[in-house]
Amino acid sequence: MIKIGGNIIDDEKMLTAFLKKFAAVSSKKILIHGGGKLATRMAEKLGISQQMIDGRRITDAETLKIVTMVYAGYINKNIVAELQSMKCNALGITGADGNSILSHKREKAGIDYGFAGDIDQVDASWFIKLLLNGQSLVVAPITHDGKGQLLNTNADTVAQEIAKSLSSFFEVVLVYSFEKSGVLKDVENENSVIEKLHLGYYKELKETEKIFAGMIPKLDNAFKAIEAGVHKVIIGKGQELDQLIIGNSGTTISHE
Amino acid sequence: MIKIGGNIIDDEKMLTAFLKKFAAVSSKKILIHGGGKLATRMAEKLGISQQMIDGRRITDAETLKIVTMVYAGYINKNIVAELQSMKCNALGITGADGNSILSHKREKAGIDYGFAGDIDQVDASWFIKLLLNGQSLVVAPITHDGKGQLLNTNADTVAQEIAKSLSSFFEVVLVYSFEKSGVLKDVENENSVIEKLHLGYYKELKETEKIFAGMIPKLDNAFKAIEAGVHKVIIGKGQELDQLIIGNSGTTISHE
Repeated sequence: MIKIGGNIIDDEKMLTAFLKKFAAVSSKKILIHGGGKLATRMAEKLGISQQMIDGRRITDAETLKIVTMVYAGYINKNIVAELQSMKCNALGITGADGNSILSHKREKAGIDYGFAGDIDQVDASWFIKLLLNGQSLVVAPITHDGKGQLLNTNADTVAQEIAKSLSSFFEVVLVYSFEKSGVLKDVENENSVIEKLHLGYYKELKETEKIFAGMIPKLDNAFKAIEAGVHKVIIGKGQELDQLIIGNSGTTISHE
Repeated sequence: MIKIGGNIIDDEKMLTAFLKKFAAVSSKKILIHGGGKLATRMAEKLGISQQMIDGRRITDAETLKIVTMVYAGYINKNIVAELQSMKCNALGITGADGNSILSHKREKAGIDYGFAGDIDQVDASWFIKLLLNGQSLVVAPITHDGKGQLLNTNADTVAQEIAKSLSSFFEVVLVYSFEKSGVLKDVENENSVIEKLHLGYYKELKETEKIFAGMIPKLDNAFKAIEAGVHKVIIGKGQELDQLIIGNSGTTISHE
């Protein structure tokens, strides 16, 4: 289960290089993508202003339309076509397809997040059938509420929830690729990657404030995934996907 | 195999009523849609001018981006989510997904059609596996060339090619829904529907010019589909889908 970072989606050459490495992964595989900067640029062109609360885009009706077009249409189908050219038989989906990911509209006192979805249920058996059938999956982070409403959903969370749901059936490795080489001790120093992180060490680093604050929500989530049965979470540079997967690069998070 | 007309896609209430009837169809089913007027409106908003040759939109790179966003993203996923709310387990696809429909870029002396695809091959076994698995399919008319290029493809042709490819395995009924009640003897008179049309009668009508010229390409294609093994082609009003399918409405085209 591989989450691709926005920095790669925004760069055509890097995306092609990444997809080649993804296509070469021999295990059953799922790719999850967001939209990079394209959704924001499209909204600007159409004169739709974007509102952010706590780093999350507020998904009004017009923004939902744009992310559905950009994520589930343009980016998803171009990735699928490119993977096909590399002989990787991909199928692009959202959580509405096959009723695979059910969510509900986020509600929180005082804040209207618009059409943002929090996940209730992943249909693991649906994913398994397709994977066992030799299909690689490319997932756009749009889910639905079962009542006809599409919902914009955080791509990291979608990756995590699918990974958790599949962990009773497969040994799941969840890879988060982003622009850094891994979890850094010193955010200014790309050579300070923490190679292995288990819960005890993570607590120690947190207590002594030796970890970049911006990474903490991602890492808290990673440990939740591990507790829920995911075999390993690996965080690192998308360009090094082949090395990340075998644990030769990035930060590997596991029980011990 | 049901092709939905643009007039229904453009009208939210009509679309919901149509999808209810589609969801209620008890056979294995595939829905094929275009984009109605939404792609044109989106192009206008973004200031991209649309060129037409012989009634076909010229698909330049920017237009391909828009149709991919609108057809494969917005319209496809909204139809899927709405079908899910009606307990119809739909999966939305393009021809790139599962490598299901291969095409090549149209080339014709003197005219550059841009990124328009003519279909070479439909992977019937891929469709059959999903259908037998209880999945209804919703197809956006975007195909690919196997080399990473998405191609805009005529939705009527996509419907016909899938129908033909499946006709060795299923008794395929191909329904083209549009704004008229069927094939009319007199294009001004909605009560002049020809209920049954076989090849002999069609030739007679063509020779005596008793058939609306605009319908001839559609009907020529319908007869080609019949010759290639499709059981029946039915042409009529989308609003009457339940009646069309059982032959109580519209024009039924068959061997005899």
